[in-house]
Amino acid sequence: MKYGYFDDARREYVITTPKTPLPWINYLGNEDFFSLISNTCGGYSFYKDAKLLRLTRYRYNNVPADTNGRYYFIKHGDTVWNPAWQPVKTRLDQYECRHGLGYSVFRSSKDGIAAKLTAFVPLGRACEVNQLVLSNQTDAIQELTLTSYVEFCFWNAVDDASNFQRNLSIGEAEVCGSDIYHKTEYRERRSHYAYYTVNQDIDGFDTSRDAFLGVYGSVERPKAVWEGTASNSIASGGAVIGSHHLKITLAPGESKSFIFLLGYAQNPQDDKWEALGVIKKDRAKAVKAEFATDGQVEEALNQLKQYWDRLLSAYSVESADDKLNRMVNIWNQYQCMVTFNMSRSASYYESGTGRGMGFRDSCQDLLGFVHLIPERARQRILDIAATQLEDGSAYHQYQPLTKKGNSDIGGGFNDDPLWLIAAVAAYLKETGDFTILEEPVDFNNDHTKAEPLIEHLKRSFDYTLTHLGPHKLPLIGRADWK
Amino acid sequence: MKYGYFDDARREYVITTPKTPLPWINYLGNEDFFSLISNTCGGYSFYKDAKLLRLTRYRYNNVPADTNGRYYFIKHGDTVWNPAWQPVKTRLDQYECRHGLGYSVFRSSKDGIAAKLTAFVPLGRACEVNQLVLSNQTDAIQELTLTSYVEFCFWNAVDDASNFQRNLSIGEAEVCGSDIYHKTEYRERRSHYAYYTVNQDIDGFDTSRDAFLGVYGSVERPKAVWEGTASNSIASGGAVIGSHHLKITLAPGESKSFIFLLGYAQNPQDDKWEALGVIKKDRAKAVKAEFATDGQVEEALNQLKQYWDRLLSAYSVESADDKLNRMVNIWNQYQCMVTFNMSRSASYYESGTGRGMGFRDSCQDLLGFVHLIPERARQRILDIAATQLEDGSAYHQYQPLTKKGNSDIGGGFNDDPLWLIAAVAAYLKETGDFTILEEPVDFNNDHTKAEPLIEHLKRSFDYTLTHLGPHKLPLIGRADWK
Repeated sequence: MKYGYFDDARREYVITTPKTPLPWINYLGNEDFFSLISNTCGGYSFYKDAKLLRLTRYRYNNVPADTNGRYYFIKHGDTVWNPAWQPVKTRLDQYECRHGLGYSVFRSSKDGIAAKLTAFVPLGRACEVNQLVLSNQTDAIQELTLTSYVEFCFWNAVDDASNFQRNLSIGEAEVCGSDIYHKTEYRERRSHYAYYTVNQDIDGFDTSRDAFLGVYGSVERPKAVWEGTASNSIASGGAVIGSHHLKITLAPGESKSFIFLLGYAQNPQDDKWEALGVIKKDRAKAVKAEFATDGQVEEALNQLKQYWDRLLSAYSVESADDKLNRMVNIWNQYQCMVTFNMSRSASYYESGTGRGMGFRDSCQDLLGFVHLIPERARQRILDIAATQLEDGSAYHQYQPLTKKGNSDIGGGFNDDPLWLIAAVAAYLKETGDFTILEEPVDFNNDHTKAEPLIEHLKRSFDYTLTHLGPHKLPLIGRADWK
Repeated sequence: MKYGYFDDARREYVITTPKTPLPWINYLGNEDFFSLISNTCGGYSFYKDAKLLRLTRYRYNNVPADTNGRYYFIKHGDTVWNPAWQPVKTRLDQYECRHGLGYSVFRSSKDGIAAKLTAFVPLGRACEVNQLVLSNQTDAIQELTLTSYVEFCFWNAVDDASNFQRNLSIGEAEVCGSDIYHKTEYRERRSHYAYYTVNQDIDGFDTSRDAFLGVYGSVERPKAVWEGTASNSIASGGAVIGSHHLKITLAPGESKSFIFLLGYAQNPQDDKWEALGVIKKDRAKAVKAEFATDGQVEEALNQLKQYWDRLLSAYSVESADDKLNRMVNIWNQYQCMVTFNMSRSASYYESGTGRGMGFRDSCQDLLGFVHLIPERARQRILDIAATQLEDGSAYHQYQPLTKKGNSDIGGGFNDDPLWLIAAVAAYLKETGDFTILEEPVDFNNDHTKAEPLIEHLKRSFDYTLTHLGPHKLPLIGRADWK
């Protein structure tokens, strides 16, 4: 069974059926905003930290597999379908998913309507762009309804999936024109919000999951989609979703484009209200203005492609073996960058809710990307070293948002500190930048205990030397591979 | 909108539509084995502890609402339906759910086939009985297929819902005749297993969720059910389910009964294998033999009803107000017993995965059931007191399986110790059994620190007296209501 192929010229992997044995996912985002997206548009988004600032709710190990996601429902006569098959799973006349470097493109068609959905996280912006182009390939005028859907997570992904007696009562949303704002806990303890918007006037919206799906309803068959009408619901408790409802007429041969944004914005704590109970929206509006036209989206996507051109140009091989070239020049390096971004903490199997980033892992991973992003590797080294304890030992993990050691897991994995030396050595070999050794770095994130990085390395080494067993070999401690 | 009514004579609440605004649930079980069951057969089962020994997987705050459960699919021609509507949600010709005291009965019909499903946890046994009677109310022979379904949880409900990189690879099942055994981790670290069985020969089975539902399949439309054939799958990794497949012929007017059991059994650690890799099954088989006939099931249900007659006979009121009589004589006392059993730790909203049992809560709850079960109230008092610390303070919560204080939450809720005095006072007033005061009770579950219960009460009181603020009022500490 063949499910797809590599397109080396475009540096894409092309999936030709939605029914892969497991979801095949891509990772969007390069700095602070990240999304996972599968070949059927499943996945979730977060800002900086998959545990603490989760934007959308995902259900791991779910039935049906790989729900939720960002979903676009197209109702055309009595048929409802999605450009990426899920969740309705209507048989498509055509389907293709291209996972590229930091973006995914879905092309599909059904009954003479073609859809092209492009998803990416633009450089320097905390949002995911979903550009959907619908085309009428028939000789007749076609009437459609287009309905969007995301389900918001209440920020802390662990609490969101366990503290139901609380989180079923606190959901809040706000709608302003085509812009849907998720603001649960904004009033009480947060100054950040999520937004989901489209660059068009809409014919309706929903923010209450129950109103949209119907009680006992499923995302495979949302009530609002099948009934062809939104209920303009404002969630107050329950589950908060974002859904836009658009009625569309396409002349023969006509195409229309819709630019959806799912974004994160943070206000200053003392300047977060526009009016009583109305959140200040200028940051979201500014981003929306940057992605209001197809030209702007195309430009942002081009910048993203140039960014990857630049990254991958640092190191390449040309051999007689296409497969070797492909892996060395594209996918291994891409994987290393994904590992830099996610540090193995967020995937479909590592839920992003438990472990944060590994001390050992992140030091090891650095060897794979130091040549791509030496400046960011430098910062990563300093972040990791700042969680080290004064005696040279280390927290096994740290949380990406706070950059502090994770005391739930604690330390005592005695190989951890040595990997810091390996990481710094790799950085020095790549850059020759010996100034990093003089950089003052906290111990245990305490500024008063800062010492030059070289002192951290010495303590790492000393800790190993002074923790030996009866055979004079270093004690492993509680390392997971012992 | 009316969804049901009280049947006071039978002491049941009768729900007349499956589409209640939220799931309306009943609590089955009286000692060690507990199940939650909704009016559409959703819910989950556990042994002693909803966090540490969860038998079946439930998805809180799910879409569709209230899935999973113990499900029975009836395929009759091209129509598939469930006796309690979910998960297929086929419109039924008749539907009724009766939530009684420790049991629930569902009666429904579709196209001339009637179903009666009786669910309860028998006294003294660690299993849930599901007796399903199918009747042909037509004048013709009818051919049906009956398919059962539960999805097993991998015991620790928190790990099961977070540690996917591990738990997607460890699932194990065993099938022997009509008996399906869930034995994940039995080999490595457990000596207990779950079983799901039926008192009939079967025509097939499934234990792999993917095989049963189909990849990307849903429990609303399992592949095996619609195709009318099981694949006799043995799960090896992935999700482990239990599903029996039975082909049934019913003559006009004929009824057939099927007794399904979902149970828990524990073997001695040093005597857990029947043969290499084959678990020892004698305990499950012994329970199965006790519920092999309709007569046995009827007898067990009668015993359960007598148990409740006895409990409720201790305290009753007769007044001119039916509603007062109903609440005092039946439902308030039933609720108190459910609170004794679950101690607010497992419901659809309190997930049973976080808090264990509350020190304060359990002391307060005792006031509601001490007259019903004075001997068990006595034990509950001793269990709670044994988690108290030597200085008189208390863990705020303790885990029902281990009966040890929960150090994640810790103590410092300064009202906690005083509630122990209130609980003991209630027990003394009800029973006059002052011997409890002399009973030796551990501090912090340490036998070497045992002191008579009266000493615990003194320390509770002293702790309050010695922790006063500037106005000589007791310091609240970190109590949740301050």
